[in-house]
Amino acid sequence: MLGQDGDGCCGGLAVAPLGDERAAELAKVFKALGDPVRLRLLSMIASREGGEVCVCEMTPAFDLSQPTISHHLKLLRQAGLIDCERRGTWVYYWVLPGVLDRLAAFLTTSQTAGAVA
Amino acid sequence: MLGQDGDGCCGGLAVAPLGDERAAELAKVFKALGDPVRLRLLSMIASREGGEVCVCEMTPAFDLSQPTISHHLKLLRQAGLIDCERRGTWVYYWVLPGVLDRLAAFLTTSQTAGAVA
Repeated sequence: MLGQDGDGCCGGLAVAPLGDERAAELAKVFKALGDPVRLRLLSMIASREGGEVCVCEMTPAFDLSQPTISHHLKLLRQAGLIDCERRGTWVYYWVLPGVLDRLAAFLTTSQTAGAVA
Repeated sequence: MLGQDGDGCCGGLAVAPLGDERAAELAKVFKALGDPVRLRLLSMIASREGGEVCVCEMTPAFDLSQPTISHHLKLLRQAGLIDCERRGTWVYYWVLPGVLDRLAAFLTTSQTAGAVA
């Protein structure tokens, strides 16, 4: 979804006006990030040493039901930000490799930072 | 809103779990980006040489009414992404300095890219 050829390509927001199709794809990702619970969930996963978090560790941090948390995680997954796997009783989540850096490269207006990311 | 001390501070998404307050602030910005028309408008402004775009130049690119375009621009402004000034008949828009790079730094998981942005 985000520079699928894996080099954070296709021009950033500040390089040239976005086309319809790419704007629609990227809007889905930003919409998924546009909720405080989802941002906190993503941050819990992204900041975890080892990169994987059990849903059972995330739920207690919120005053929300397990199905609500699972719904938010599903929206992050549908946006292509995270993936998951069931192992026994629990589902484990991780951030898809490179996706946050490609999103960062898309937003950055500095040529240098874009090249590094 | 985004690292107001101007150094892209306060830890990225992948550094430590986000707190409630910061998640709420950032979610507002991502929500503003979570719409294809707003992303295209922001990209038109951000990619413009000189940095300023008249609303009269943006409207023709969309099959939408002037009030609808103005509403989307207002949401981008309320999110702290752009600002504007009326000069005579028209309103001119520009991206607030550093805001996109700070957002990129927040998302990036690479220490190096974060430091550059």
